[in-house]
Order: sequence, then structure tokens, then C-alpha cells
Amino acid sequence: MELEALSVGQYSFVQNGYSFGFAVMAAATLFFWLMKSEIAPAYRLAITITGLVTAVAAYHYLQIMLSWGAAVDITAGEVVSTGKPFNQAYRYVDWLLTVPLLLIELILVMRLSRKETIKKSTVLGGAAALMIVLGYPGEVSSVGGLRFVFWVLSMIPFVYIVYQLVVGLKESISQQPESVKGLINIAVYLVIGSWLFYPIVYLFPLVGLEGGAAITAVEIGYTVADIVAKAVFGVFIFVIAMRKSQDETQGAPTVHHAANVEADDEKETSTLS
Amino acid sequence: MELEALSVGQYSFVQNGYSFGFAVMAAATLFFWLMKSEIAPAYRLAITITGLVTAVAAYHYLQIMLSWGAAVDITAGEVVSTGKPFNQAYRYVDWLLTVPLLLIELILVMRLSRKETIKKSTVLGGAAALMIVLGYPGEVSSVGGLRFVFWVLSMIPFVYIVYQLVVGLKESISQQPESVKGLINIAVYLVIGSWLFYPIVYLFPLVGLEGGAAITAVEIGYTVADIVAKAVFGVFIFVIAMRKSQDETQGAPTVHHAANVEADDEKETSTLS
Repeated sequence: MELEALSVGQYSFVQNGYSFGFAVMAAATLFFWLMKSEIAPAYRLAITITGLVTAVAAYHYLQIMLSWGAAVDITAGEVVSTGKPFNQAYRYVDWLLTVPLLLIELILVMRLSRKETIKKSTVLGGAAALMIVLGYPGEVSSVGGLRFVFWVLSMIPFVYIVYQLVVGLKESISQQPESVKGLINIAVYLVIGSWLFYPIVYLFPLVGLEGGAAITAVEIGYTVADIVAKAVFGVFIFVIAMRKSQDETQGAPTVHHAANVEADDEKETSTLS
Repeated sequence: MELEALSVGQYSFVQNGYSFGFAVMAAATLFFWLMKSEIAPAYRLAITITGLVTAVAAYHYLQIMLSWGAAVDITAGEVVSTGKPFNQAYRYVDWLLTVPLLLIELILVMRLSRKETIKKSTVLGGAAALMIVLGYPGEVSSVGGLRFVFWVLSMIPFVYIVYQLVVGLKESISQQPESVKGLINIAVYLVIGSWLFYPIVYLFPLVGLEGGAAITAVEIGYTVADIVAKAVFGVFIFVIAMRKSQDETQGAPTVHHAANVEADDEKETSTLS
């Protein structure tokens, strides 16, 4: 990446974006973990993992911010490279861990049967990890053809995950309590919507978008997409868990629960464990 | 180790591997400790130690990452040694503490009698410490013959531990509740499987594997093996502890427990404490 193409204003704007990303992720983590005890035990695993996703992301925003700072010096109003490479790969390291986990937090908050939880977590989490692993070689390659090949390979698990979220989860979502059905649908579309940004940006260098404005757009765009997919998505997971906790402890069971009181007692302790 | 043999891509890949290792270990630690309160008291010692193993590993991944960073400069797209040695021995310092502990966490989650817990922990933990201590002189020696001699010496406790895990624990595992028997077997084979990597890699320098690709393969391989043996293994220990907690608190005792209700009450407070 040619950081010298950046103006000082663009360079600082991206830097401020990373700092904002770190602050949002760290604040979200503290929020989820501090509120965990207010949630019913059945949803604490989901909330713990929700905070784990933002915690890992906070760490990587700190790392990427430090790498961005070390890669250039600002001398006489110009951005000058120090020779140290800007390590954009921290994003991939982050995604490899957080993307499978954020799909798992969605599965967990739905509180399916133990068998279904394990099956869906394995399939979605595995596909997500594969998607990230296939993206990396193209990202670090300077050969345009390779970048495109790995984009195509990475899009296969991407499309599969979107299909599973939209079609595969449809029946499970329909069995959720009325009070959270809408929220779960929003959470699903939040993931899909924010994810659409990544494969588009990946192709930027192939179509010649490489100057200072393009770098700024990509980095700010990634940061916004990450905040939506992890922190905002996490808040929806939290609200879903909170509502389900209240419904269940207030003895105001929904139609779904009333019809399955016994089965539900067992489910209390299901999820992954 | 000749770090100048590395390309910038290989150097960064190993760096990203360390960062990933740190993130995984730190996230796993937070996960185990945050979820500890959701586990029955009898298994909290096991879960505390599970988090301790990943916490110690996280610290050493941070140290090794800093050492890797300080050992070279990247100048004009080349990896140039700064003269400061890369301290690979952090791995041994880590293993000396974590390898005995991770065997102990397996013993603890099985909740054997107090006597057996102490005996097996001492024997397995002691053998593990001996294995690491015997490996170290060969690792830091530049004499091929010495490296081989200490490899052989270190393999004696290694083989003994594998034997104890596969044969010595067989009877104890057969008495575990049905709901976790399969998981304990997977955990045992996860340890053995990931450990096989270490003695093989140890011999690399003896057979002349020393260039940039070999260094990259060794460092990434160690990192993956550590993640499997500590974080992934730890997740299995956690799920075992969670399932056993639920089985026991729900008054749905397995055959094993039903037959030992009184003995079981005593065992509630057994384990090491």
C-alpha cells in the first residue's frame, strides 16, 4: 500500500477512525460483560461470546493503529514512509477469530436444541473460517490474477453463509418468541448488509482504485463495517437475550413456550454444552 | 536462527501468527474465567486452571512477538538483523508451566477420588516438567549430537505420558458419565495429536531444514499446536465441566452417579482441595 499517496488530512482521518474503532469495541466489551449477570443463565454464554468478539476486535484495532503510526513520519506537512510496512493483515487475523464467533453468538441466543446448536455452529463457523483463510493469500499477493482467483474462492463460503442465514435459519427463527422475532431478523440482515462491503472493497486494487482517497475510503469503510457487524450486532444480541430473559422469568411465556413447557425446561441448559 | 533468510512476507506471516496466538489465548482465558461462575463448584478448580494455562501462554506469545519484532528491521523491503537475538526459549519457559497444568486440568475435570487425583496429577505433571527440562539443553545447543541426545532423553517422559493417557486413564474414563465420555476421549487425543508436532519439528535442524520456509513452517506449526493443545483443548474441558454440572444439578444422574450417591457427595469436595 502506497501510504505516501495520502495527504496529512487523509492520514489523520484514518488514524482517528482506528482510534474510534478501538474505543467502540472496548466500550462494547465492557458493556456486555458488566451486564452479563443481569441476563438469565441460559443466555450468558451468548453474551460472554458477544463480548469476546468485540474484545478481540479492540485488540486488533489497537495493533493496526500502532502499525499505521509506525509506518509513516509526518515531515514538513508531508506523509513520508519510514520503511516499516503497514500490516493490514491484522484485519484477517481478527476476522479469522471474530467472524466464526459472531455467527455462533447468533445461534446461541436463539437457544436451539443442543444438537442443532452444535451442528449450526460447526457449519457456519467452519464456513466463516474458510472464507477468511481463502481471502488472505489474495490480499497479500501483488499479482492481480491471484487476487481475483482467491476472491472467487472466498465468495463460495460467503454465499453459502448468506444462504444459510436467510434460508437455513428461517424455520428456527419462526419458532422464536414474538417479542424477539423482529430483532433476530434485523440482526441477520445487519450481518449480511455489513458483510457486502468486504468483497467489494477487496476488488478495488483490481479496478485501479489505489490513490490516497481510495486508501482512506477502504480503511474507513472497513472500520464502519466492523463496528456494525460486531458492536451494533452485539447490542441486538444483547437486547434479544434481555427480552428473552424477562419473558421467561416473568412467567409470561410466549405461544411457543407455552406449547413446550417440558421441552423448554430441558432446553434451559442446552446450547453448546 | 538465521532470520535474514526470511522474506518480508514470511516474516510478517509469522508475526501475524504470534499475534493470532496471543489473541486466541487471551480470549480463551477471559472466556473460561467469565464463565466459571456458571459451572458447578466441583469443577471451578479445573476451569480456573484451564484459564491459567491460556493466560500464561498469552503472556509468552506477547513476549515472543516483541522479541520477533526487536530482532529485525525491515529496510527497503528486506529483512535485516538488528543484532538482538530472537529468544525462542520463551516457548520452553511457557511449556514448563503450562504443560503440567494442562494435564492436571484434564485429571481435575474427571473428578476422580482425592487420592487418585493427587497421584495422577503428580505423576503426569512431573513427567511433563521433566520432558520440557530435558528438551531445553538440546534446543539451545548448536551441536547436532547434543540436540539428538536430549531429543532421545526428552522422548522417554513423552512416551510415558502418552502411555498413561491412553492406557492409564482408560479405566477412569470408562467410569465417566455417558454424556461426556466421548468428549474426554477427544480431549485426550487432541493432546496427543497436537503434541506429535513438537518432537518432529525439534529434529528439523538435524536434517538440514533451516531456510526461510523451514523457520516459517516451524513457528506457524508451533503456534497452531499450542492453540490446539491449550485453547481448543480448554474448550473441551469447559464443555465437559458444563455438561457434568448440568447432569448433576438437574438430578438426572447417570448410571455411574446413581450407583454412588453417597460416595458422590463426598466427592463434591474432593479433587485437589
